[in-house]
Amino acid sequence: MDNAFLPDTTPTWIWYPGDFEIWLSNKMQVRRTEREAVFPPLWRYYSPYPLVTFQTEVDIPEDDDIKIYSEGPFQLLIDGIQIYGQPKSIKIPAGKHKISFKVYNQEVLPAIFIQGKYIQSNTSWKVTNEDKLWIDETGTAQQSGTPWVSVGSWNFNTPDQKPSEFQLATEPWRAKNVEKINEGELIDFGKETFGYIQFHGLKGHGKLALYYGESREEALDTEKCETLDNLEFDGNQDNIYTLKGSKAFRFVQVQKDASLEYDSISMLYEYLPLDYRGSFTSSDELLNQIWDVSAYTMHLTTREFFIDGIKRDRWIWSGDAYQSYLMNYYLFFDSPSVERTLVALRGKEPVTAHINTIMDYSLYWFVGVYDYYLYTGDTKFIKTYYPRMKSLMEYCLGRRNKNGFLEPLEGDWVFIDWADGLPKTGEVSFEQMLLVRSLEAMAVSAEIAGESEDYKAYKNLAEDLKTKLFDIFWDEAENVMKHQRVDGEIQKMVTRYANMFGIFFNYFNENQKQSVKEKVLLNDDILEITTPYMRFFELEALCAMGEQEFVLNEIRDYWGGMLNLDATSFWEKYDPKQTGEEHLEMYGRPYGKSLCHAWGASPIYLFGRYYLGVEPTAPGYATYEIKPNLGGLEWMKGKVPTPNGKVELHITPNEINVKASEGEGILIIKSEAQPVSNYGEMQSIEANKYRLTINPNIAYTIKYKAL
Amino acid sequence: MDNAFLPDTTPTWIWYPGDFEIWLSNKMQVRRTEREAVFPPLWRYYSPYPLVTFQTEVDIPEDDDIKIYSEGPFQLLIDGIQIYGQPKSIKIPAGKHKISFKVYNQEVLPAIFIQGKYIQSNTSWKVTNEDKLWIDETGTAQQSGTPWVSVGSWNFNTPDQKPSEFQLATEPWRAKNVEKINEGELIDFGKETFGYIQFHGLKGHGKLALYYGESREEALDTEKCETLDNLEFDGNQDNIYTLKGSKAFRFVQVQKDASLEYDSISMLYEYLPLDYRGSFTSSDELLNQIWDVSAYTMHLTTREFFIDGIKRDRWIWSGDAYQSYLMNYYLFFDSPSVERTLVALRGKEPVTAHINTIMDYSLYWFVGVYDYYLYTGDTKFIKTYYPRMKSLMEYCLGRRNKNGFLEPLEGDWVFIDWADGLPKTGEVSFEQMLLVRSLEAMAVSAEIAGESEDYKAYKNLAEDLKTKLFDIFWDEAENVMKHQRVDGEIQKMVTRYANMFGIFFNYFNENQKQSVKEKVLLNDDILEITTPYMRFFELEALCAMGEQEFVLNEIRDYWGGMLNLDATSFWEKYDPKQTGEEHLEMYGRPYGKSLCHAWGASPIYLFGRYYLGVEPTAPGYATYEIKPNLGGLEWMKGKVPTPNGKVELHITPNEINVKASEGEGILIIKSEAQPVSNYGEMQSIEANKYRLTINPNIAYTIKYKAL
Repeated sequence: MDNAFLPDTTPTWIWYPGDFEIWLSNKMQVRRTEREAVFPPLWRYYSPYPLVTFQTEVDIPEDDDIKIYSEGPFQLLIDGIQIYGQPKSIKIPAGKHKISFKVYNQEVLPAIFIQGKYIQSNTSWKVTNEDKLWIDETGTAQQSGTPWVSVGSWNFNTPDQKPSEFQLATEPWRAKNVEKINEGELIDFGKETFGYIQFHGLKGHGKLALYYGESREEALDTEKCETLDNLEFDGNQDNIYTLKGSKAFRFVQVQKDASLEYDSISMLYEYLPLDYRGSFTSSDELLNQIWDVSAYTMHLTTREFFIDGIKRDRWIWSGDAYQSYLMNYYLFFDSPSVERTLVALRGKEPVTAHINTIMDYSLYWFVGVYDYYLYTGDTKFIKTYYPRMKSLMEYCLGRRNKNGFLEPLEGDWVFIDWADGLPKTGEVSFEQMLLVRSLEAMAVSAEIAGESEDYKAYKNLAEDLKTKLFDIFWDEAENVMKHQRVDGEIQKMVTRYANMFGIFFNYFNENQKQSVKEKVLLNDDILEITTPYMRFFELEALCAMGEQEFVLNEIRDYWGGMLNLDATSFWEKYDPKQTGEEHLEMYGRPYGKSLCHAWGASPIYLFGRYYLGVEPTAPGYATYEIKPNLGGLEWMKGKVPTPNGKVELHITPNEINVKASEGEGILIIKSEAQPVSNYGEMQSIEANKYRLTINPNIAYTIKYKAL
Repeated sequence: MDNAFLPDTTPTWIWYPGDFEIWLSNKMQVRRTEREAVFPPLWRYYSPYPLVTFQTEVDIPEDDDIKIYSEGPFQLLIDGIQIYGQPKSIKIPAGKHKISFKVYNQEVLPAIFIQGKYIQSNTSWKVTNEDKLWIDETGTAQQSGTPWVSVGSWNFNTPDQKPSEFQLATEPWRAKNVEKINEGELIDFGKETFGYIQFHGLKGHGKLALYYGESREEALDTEKCETLDNLEFDGNQDNIYTLKGSKAFRFVQVQKDASLEYDSISMLYEYLPLDYRGSFTSSDELLNQIWDVSAYTMHLTTREFFIDGIKRDRWIWSGDAYQSYLMNYYLFFDSPSVERTLVALRGKEPVTAHINTIMDYSLYWFVGVYDYYLYTGDTKFIKTYYPRMKSLMEYCLGRRNKNGFLEPLEGDWVFIDWADGLPKTGEVSFEQMLLVRSLEAMAVSAEIAGESEDYKAYKNLAEDLKTKLFDIFWDEAENVMKHQRVDGEIQKMVTRYANMFGIFFNYFNENQKQSVKEKVLLNDDILEITTPYMRFFELEALCAMGEQEFVLNEIRDYWGGMLNLDATSFWEKYDPKQTGEEHLEMYGRPYGKSLCHAWGASPIYLFGRYYLGVEPTAPGYATYEIKPNLGGLEWMKGKVPTPNGKVELHITPNEINVKASEGEGILIIKSEAQPVSNYGEMQSIEANKYRLTINPNIAYTIKYKAL
């Protein structure tokens, strides 16, 4: 049958695109507490549309009995005719039909799940927040100008998996050690964790206090620990009592009235179920441990969304998330997590501030969208959200100064990094460079969205701004990029930020790169980077310059330094010069520092991208490159996930084993002698440099001699 | 003490301005049902901001113990320092302090009630939806660019009057008549009403169906009545059972299983408690009855908001509401109802469609704001909502065609009126005239909001468009305004719409007015008006032309016609040519017509404004005019409310009694001989026309001889 509506056997809950993500992110981010005060974000919250209309057009070969599940009361129209009542099921006759559900839900979000043999709620449905369907005086339905968009969905594939009841998974964990502290006890779960404390055999009545700590010191400090719970029981509680609020901790101190008793304490570890699709092991046990702790840190911070840290903010920060996206591509390759996070950050209309109120964080968002397309090849995201990309870019462009540069206006926070003495006023080259990259991302996205005028406009804007960036900030004499211009005056200061991004954005020519590497990256006189956040990019720039061996030593020192201090997850900030409890302090508070912070997990990205050396060169790994670099290791072994498979590698100085499951790869290696492969032909590119095309599902073994 | 913070003894619940109204209107409008299907509006719903920060600065002479009530978890900062926990009360020390509450509530809306001796939540507080308060690395709070606005409030002046629990008032009403119908019964409540059916002594189990009717015919027609309820009881119901959903009806038919029994049925009449501050009685009993039924119609449709009709839509339509505002000024003078309705209609940002998707309805909104200012003198509303006025106007101006005229684009519904054969495409003069008036309203509002650039811009736009309107649509030969221009061609058709608005907008000169009156208003060849909606304006135009006597006859015929058909409230549409059940039919449905429709109540406005003849000439009745016109009546008597009082009038052809409580009034009368007043001096204006200044609280008695 022509144009037949083919059965799709996987109905799923559908909603207005982005609305579930916005609703969930509102709920999640307000779960931050500080000593029992809620601590919501400082930026605006958007909301789901409380009233939306879902619609599909079907052509079915026989009658279809559909079941209707809805979050919120609904109005059902079949072929423009209202169906009376709120049916739980209905028979749709064979043939062509237009089916519309208008659903209201102010409290959560409107969503439906439709289950029939032929008709099922899925991503082919359209939705609108203003259907504009009106009935004229004669009873005739009129409709025009309705802004239909494709629905949003995730993985809620059964009727009882209501979006409003979404919960992360949990599993019970036992305490590792229990120690008497005064009248109470200190429970150690052995490593950083996240979840809900559970009491077993809780009897009696009275008060009970829990003091949480990412460190032993914090849990013991009842006056200053960042999170705590004061509970009161009347004797009617369940025997097994689980706390309602989740917390991040390794230690928890419990103090209680004598009138209360319990047998034991455990916890429900809460997590997003994800496969570790990427892996890395090597001849260096310390690096392996660093990768493992990085992966655990990444998993702890990969939750409803990619968050910054699990103890304190529990917020979605665009700069932090940008790094999580990149790490994710080398660990979970979980596309929904990237999408959820991008959407939650972007919110809806109107745009009235930068994302997280931070100028650089708006710009990372665009680059994050571009990377998402590059790694996954998914064009649907861009097609769906292009209008929101555009309105955010219009906002950014509207905040340029008369020179066409971004310069902070009232309410704009220029973050860049936590670094003492870092100037952030006037025209900062780093921000302009991010804007160039963002405009390039917009041009690519406009093309995908079919907006050819926009494509041209953004392409021209990007080129013009890039030219201006170099005209103004590139110092031809010193051969480096300057940090800042204030009131038309270029400032003397040189910082690492724009210089390192210029390398891996590939904005510098070879001569510029070498100059930047020596005069900036390897120059101790340039303002030092102390956060793992910017450390991520600094090490990436060095790797991009072939300094893998140097970087490995840096990783051993920096991340190894945290492990030496018994870190079980990586921190928000680490300063080797500090000692003892100084390591716990930040923001003027003794335990202010987050000891499990996403941006601490960057070795995952560096190992996959610059040691195993795998990166897509066309969207979705249609083509990709493998440039392995042992960085002095005897061997390394690992997997890099791709959209529907993986690239498996085992590298020694003499042999490389590669097997990939999709796409066309190019293996590029340096070898003293002509390498030999069991399949395909090694081609010489230049002196001591060779390439081999990697086709899917072939186990390549290449003999060579590493340079 | 200088700058002392003075105690304000009336704390009230406060919220982000407009958010309660938007939340409540979302809830209310979705209560429309059609045979048990929910029937939500066709336009977009906005939402409250789920996260807002309330702030006040105080300077108190002694410590103040404040009690804290919040809808939603909150974060409390005093002088930028977070207070731990969620205190129910706290002591604020004497002196200057900045107090901030950040409140989260996704389900309803964030709101607080603060009660202390000196510190109380009231309209002096500020609120923002993005506080942008961030803590830097050193723990220092930074804030800039925060968009603070004045809070919203209503009359929730005790802690337990939570905004989320708002309900209209109810009172029990008994049935007037009960009649056996088949196995069940038909209950008649004697007149149109609204509320919740209540069963007394409900026992047993089984099914029960209720069929509502504004007419007896409708309630008897179980297959076609517009609203019904199917209930099922398991025997555990309360003895007194009240339905959850409210309905509009005069009659209700009950049919039930024999296994169910009840003693009697009553109802809870639901209403907004309001004083009837205006009144009108006269020597004509029919007119008095028309006024009474109009007032009742108006009260039934004045609910959470001014709605169109109580049975069917229960929606807020800007055109209908515009007339309710005007009627309200002569009946309740309830400003909060006008504010609530204006805000609910306007919604928030971004503007993506006309109000109710109707071009004219966006424009009435601006005129409604202007009238609100004129009648109440309230500048706070305009100051608070000026940004939303401006964004709506920008939307409207953005939809002009290349000639600068509004011409419908995709999604724009041009309503004007229900009238067969009324052309609505191309450039319609009526829409342009409303736009001129709207631009004038914007100019006045811009001035009040202190936006002097905008003031100039809107003033010029209004003048230019008005000139163009007359250049294009005013037919110098025929001396009337044409209806429409299509593709640059003026169409021959002349309609009443622009011509009658031109009169009471005072856009026509005297010669033009006379011509329009004869050639259009009193010309039966011009497309007839059949809705009380446009009838409102048609009669207003005739009154403005001094045709009070003619109009009284029209009122007697038209509204009297409905009373002859036993109307107990006035209808959506009345056509004297129809008979029997034809009167109930509309939109192709046998009971589609609303028999209680706000726009049916216009005599309230006409009697107050054009017979008692009272209208403000400066904002808030600072100055006003009284131009009484008996229209052939022997006497009339009435009150017209003013913001803080009333104007009381008693008029016969020989004597006028006036007493006013505020403002400076000018009584203007026509008299064959020089009138004599007990106070003040009657001044002659022109032949047979006299004026007297009316000062507050003086009982004037004027002897004259009506012309």
